[in-house]
Amino acid sequence: MTTVDRERSIARVAADVQELTGSAYTSTPEAIRRYAYTDVYTNTLDYFATQFEELGHDVSYDPVGTLVARNRPAGTKVFGVGSHCDSNRNGGPYDGTLGVVVALEVCRLDAEHGTNLPLQAISFLEEEGSGFGQMLLGSRIMVQRVGEADLKEHFRSLDDGRSFWEHAEDAGYDPADWRESIHVLDDLIGWIETHIEQARVLQDTDNRLGVVNAIAGYVHGDITVNGRTDHAGATPMSFRQDAAVVAGMCITELERLATEAGHGTVGTVGEISLSPGIINVVPGEARLSLDVRGPEDAAFRSVVDAISAYAEEAARARGLTASYAMRQTLPATPMDTAIVAELETAAASSGAPFRTMLSGAAHDTMCVASRVPSAMVFVPCRDGISHAPDEEADPADGALAAEVIFNAIQQLV
Amino acid sequence: MTTVDRERSIARVAADVQELTGSAYTSTPEAIRRYAYTDVYTNTLDYFATQFEELGHDVSYDPVGTLVARNRPAGTKVFGVGSHCDSNRNGGPYDGTLGVVVALEVCRLDAEHGTNLPLQAISFLEEEGSGFGQMLLGSRIMVQRVGEADLKEHFRSLDDGRSFWEHAEDAGYDPADWRESIHVLDDLIGWIETHIEQARVLQDTDNRLGVVNAIAGYVHGDITVNGRTDHAGATPMSFRQDAAVVAGMCITELERLATEAGHGTVGTVGEISLSPGIINVVPGEARLSLDVRGPEDAAFRSVVDAISAYAEEAARARGLTASYAMRQTLPATPMDTAIVAELETAAASSGAPFRTMLSGAAHDTMCVASRVPSAMVFVPCRDGISHAPDEEADPADGALAAEVIFNAIQQLV
Repeated sequence: MTTVDRERSIARVAADVQELTGSAYTSTPEAIRRYAYTDVYTNTLDYFATQFEELGHDVSYDPVGTLVARNRPAGTKVFGVGSHCDSNRNGGPYDGTLGVVVALEVCRLDAEHGTNLPLQAISFLEEEGSGFGQMLLGSRIMVQRVGEADLKEHFRSLDDGRSFWEHAEDAGYDPADWRESIHVLDDLIGWIETHIEQARVLQDTDNRLGVVNAIAGYVHGDITVNGRTDHAGATPMSFRQDAAVVAGMCITELERLATEAGHGTVGTVGEISLSPGIINVVPGEARLSLDVRGPEDAAFRSVVDAISAYAEEAARARGLTASYAMRQTLPATPMDTAIVAELETAAASSGAPFRTMLSGAAHDTMCVASRVPSAMVFVPCRDGISHAPDEEADPADGALAAEVIFNAIQQLV
Repeated sequence: MTTVDRERSIARVAADVQELTGSAYTSTPEAIRRYAYTDVYTNTLDYFATQFEELGHDVSYDPVGTLVARNRPAGTKVFGVGSHCDSNRNGGPYDGTLGVVVALEVCRLDAEHGTNLPLQAISFLEEEGSGFGQMLLGSRIMVQRVGEADLKEHFRSLDDGRSFWEHAEDAGYDPADWRESIHVLDDLIGWIETHIEQARVLQDTDNRLGVVNAIAGYVHGDITVNGRTDHAGATPMSFRQDAAVVAGMCITELERLATEAGHGTVGTVGEISLSPGIINVVPGEARLSLDVRGPEDAAFRSVVDAISAYAEEAARARGLTASYAMRQTLPATPMDTAIVAELETAAASSGAPFRTMLSGAAHDTMCVASRVPSAMVFVPCRDGISHAPDEEADPADGALAAEVIFNAIQQLV
């Protein structure tokens, strides 16, 4: 393990984060707001490009604008580090950006200590979807999880309705070559992304780092309950087919099922609508959203099966009907065990408290991991707040992440 | 009991209802839509006035336009019959109107059989609130349950925003004398209103009439649950303060409490909102409406007390908070036992199946009953549908109600 000058590292991480909260890097003073092909986004890429070039890295861009900085020529095996530097429209300074800053700090530590590791940093395009409403867009393009019609037609600017394709061309990129983006991953022998946790597990368990061993898969869907609209005063309890009651039963049952399933499975009802939705009318219809996730596909999918069966049976027993419909799903992404193990070893050596954990949120690493052995490192954020201007994290934790990743990569290359 | 010519009575009731579905009596062909001071409402009053005058009744209007038709001079005791003939904006032919038609048929039976009963029919103004957003407005004015500022300032036309007062003056009435309206009730020794049931109890129990022995009181209120907004993927089940789960518990508990309370108590959650209301965010706040009613004040009020205590405790046990706030409340209105008994006797004599029941919905009779011994008669409506264009009732049931009321009044005067 290389002993690093932590204070110097903290100062650099803090300075990078601070710089990128400046007016050149956000289109509103009220929040961090930057997304693909805006001036403030280009300024941000330029900032990182300059920093990497100062370390002697070659900086290039894939055909849609993902930044790649490497200290070895193409065709040479390298280890990947990075994240994204676009933000939520009402975002804060850390979500995404801190991960690119940490990647930069890993490269600085490498230069500073003369370890001369083969490194490639990546800053992915449009992770948040703030520009075109499409999450993980840059990494999905890279691993060919989009179609050309998506880029040319379906994915359109939230600001002006013009296509992603047109915007990419206007910004000087070559979207027609988007399939070439996959070659960014050709030389990678591993990949580590750093990100704020976006929840409060690290804070509430007094840990300063999380080593992510899996990114949860998820199912998004809806349960619709159909009963009968009746007068809330004139209809005795025994005459009702109240859709809200079945919805209420499903909410509490989902919590029970997710808890029982274990393995980090979580289940959430974030949306409910009752129809007609009037205080004095027994609801004839209820719709509730389901968000079920977990690192174990079998576990979280069994919760979806169980809650949809429960809804149907609970409705049927009361003379109503219920049905489940899926919106979308992605399988869980296990992280590479060797990289996780080296991160755990390096974290333990650092002396700082850490835990191995899963990521419930989606990240670009889900795409990278389909082709490259991957892992992630989480740093705490205050009260789990993210996607908000008052998002807060400690630069010291970012510096710690860089130190741990730097030491882990030394064992992995 | 007087034996009536039922076929003739049915034909008259059917003809009245049919006539009042005509284009002169509704401001849209898609539904019955009539409310105070519109031409179609005036036409409807004129229709009834003509019919009552043909029977030899004197027709007059209170200072805001409630129609009064009586066959005895002022100062002579009379028995009251009637309802309202305004409709919901998207209403059907029966809600309200059938009750005035039945009152008219009672007066016709009286004239036809030479029984010469002392009768006073009333058609109340603005029961539905379609004109000024105020339910039971005519009967509330009559029993002085409004203030002058309400009529002059607060109650405004949903169409043009002008005050009730101005509209009443424009229509030729004398709202300045509104306090005199109470004298409409001076000579009444009893009151019976006929109305469609607006639920499916009569239909589903194969009864053709309901004798109402109480009108439910109610509480309208809201429970607000405050938890914590968290990332639905990144927040383990044990770290959550999920407001939706407490809301779900309250919905099912309310159903249990209302059923357990008995005495016709009912409880409904008709509105729910989650905040922020996004599929992938654990809701930090939930609001649910409560509509709790029943004919026994102690029973339904105890349900409100119990559900608010339950919400607070369920929230507290999980580290959340919950609070209850009342919107409005009215006590239950027991019907007059002597009138109810005579209606039951007359209904039994008719040979038609009937049941004694409560009214869960509010009616003008709640106001009348504060000063006059009162009761109501319900007729079935198909599938409980009301406040909709496809509201349907059988004119034969209306004629049966008229026969039963006619016979009951003979015992009551």
